[in-house]
Amino acid sequence: MSEIDLTDRASYRVWTRDTIRYSDLDPNDHVNNGAINAYLEDGRVRFRNQHLSHLGAGILAGFVLVKYTIEYRAMLHFPGEVDIGTTIIRIGGSSYTQGQAVFRDDTCIATARVVVVRVSPETGRSVPLDDTLKQALRDATGFDG
Amino acid sequence: MSEIDLTDRASYRVWTRDTIRYSDLDPNDHVNNGAINAYLEDGRVRFRNQHLSHLGAGILAGFVLVKYTIEYRAMLHFPGEVDIGTTIIRIGGSSYTQGQAVFRDDTCIATARVVVVRVSPETGRSVPLDDTLKQALRDATGFDG
Amino acid sequence: MSEIDLTDRASYRVWTRDTIRYSDLDPNDHVNNGAINAYLEDGRVRFRNQHLSHLGAGILAGFVLVKYTIEYRAMLHFPGEVDIGTTIIRIGGSSYTQGQAVFRDDTCIATARVVVVRVSPETGRSVPLDDTLKQALRDATGFDG
Amino acid sequence: MSEIDLTDRASYRVWTRDTIRYSDLDPNDHVNNGAINAYLEDGRVRFRNQHLSHLGAGILAGFVLVKYTIEYRAMLHFPGEVDIGTTIIRIGGSSYTQGQAVFRDDTCIATARVVVVRVSPETGRSVPLDDTLKQALRDATGFDG
Repeated sequence: MSEIDLTDRASYRVWTRDTIRYSDLDPNDHVNNGAINAYLEDGRVRFRNQHLSHLGAGILAGFVLVKYTIEYRAMLHFPGEVDIGTTIIRIGGSSYTQGQAVFRDDTCIATARVVVVRVSPETGRSVPLDDTLKQALRDATGFDG
Repeated sequence: MSEIDLTDRASYRVWTRDTIRYSDLDPNDHVNNGAINAYLEDGRVRFRNQHLSHLGAGILAGFVLVKYTIEYRAMLHFPGEVDIGTTIIRIGGSSYTQGQAVFRDDTCIATARVVVVRVSPETGRSVPLDDTLKQALRDATGFDG
Repeated sequence: MSEIDLTDRASYRVWTRDTIRYSDLDPNDHVNNGAINAYLEDGRVRFRNQHLSHLGAGILAGFVLVKYTIEYRAMLHFPGEVDIGTTIIRIGGSSYTQGQAVFRDDTCIATARVVVVRVSPETGRSVPLDDTLKQALRDATGFDG
Repeated sequence: MSEIDLTDRASYRVWTRDTIRYSDLDPNDHVNNGAINAYLEDGRVRFRNQHLSHLGAGILAGFVLVKYTIEYRAMLHFPGEVDIGTTIIRIGGSSYTQGQAVFRDDTCIATARVVVVRVSPETGRSVPLDDTLKQALRDATGFDG
């Protein structure tokens, strides 16, 4: 794949927004990495609820987050809001990869790559992605791979 | 009721223990109130799992925490462990009150009073406490009210 | 004091807003009490930053939250936003009490009373509230007690 | 480097332990990824406090976590405890990489690679690691790279 630039707001069509909380701060007085992870989780849940939930519980059952890579790029301070962009950067046989970023205005705070595998609820083993799901992932994001 | 002393370790028979986490700290470098609330929640869940769950899902369905009063008594610092004591201080017609405290060694960090009401899952209205449940609350704690 | 109605949006002049996060949910699929406590904390921090911080670090040093009473009034679900109202309901010699509520649209999710004591950073004992601070508390909220 | 097996308890000399909390659970009734990230943070803080803090604030100033890669390997349930192992898998010119894992008994729940860069507090640019620090990292873990 020709990797998109995850630090560029133009790479994202699907957005959500979170409010920074006082409880997100750590003893260094900036937002803790754990809070940034929670923002990104909200981006993925929003993506799923807006663009995949119409596929029904059957097609959505059995997805597991197996690998999560995040690069922290700038400090974040309270108070304020962040925008979370979520897209698709790889569709494989039984897994796909989401690209994400947290922005404060034009500053990219963090980028992430998140690998999600489809598993059989019965056996726990990986199973192929459904074509309908693959198309929904492409339709939501413009990804053409 | 003749109120027991919630700051006294001898007032509690049911105990659980939590590890203080770095993420519990706030910008003042002491443990945030929210973390202390989470310790107390663990005490109540442990109490329920150890002393009430044998009563079956039927008798446990429909309990709602309606009022929570906490007094913060001492600062708490990372790292270390805390002990959480949980007891019963009132049994009423359709509700009961739990008394709790968080201790670090012999220092009482916080005490709490927590009112739990039994509600009907169908109507959402309060319903009387079952005698079996009342006895289980007394047996677990020695409360005789 | 003639107590104001904490469940009424009209009782509040100072507002903040928080986004509900997926990580706020507990196994019952509704927002955990701990998250509601965090929203209220944001309300108090915003109140302090907007209406008291101009008084300087000197007048603000040494405030400690000693008692927190919350009544949970309605279930809260993801996703969405909440409004947090914060006011003053009592000004005493060395302490004051804040009244607060979390609303989702017109539904009051929870109300809280929070007692804050001024202590000397040196001795740890309570000290009288400054008249300038008392006036700032009244100016921010309209409280006339 | 010849990579060590991060899923093997024998790869770690430095350990910490955390209690699983009810608030770590998500609506799927298993421990949320965010809680697992918090356990790993505790492992790194403990490592630093036990094996690096004697080097003084000067040598420790200016470390920034820049990249965090975690593989989630097994579901984790409440209640219980987890052991967190933390070691060193790479020492570079101005950065080092920590290897970590969360275990429940003999089950590896997650493994992580965490890149930490030394930056100048004044300029924000990366600066070389001190030889004393490099030796402390090796002494604590047995890493010989």
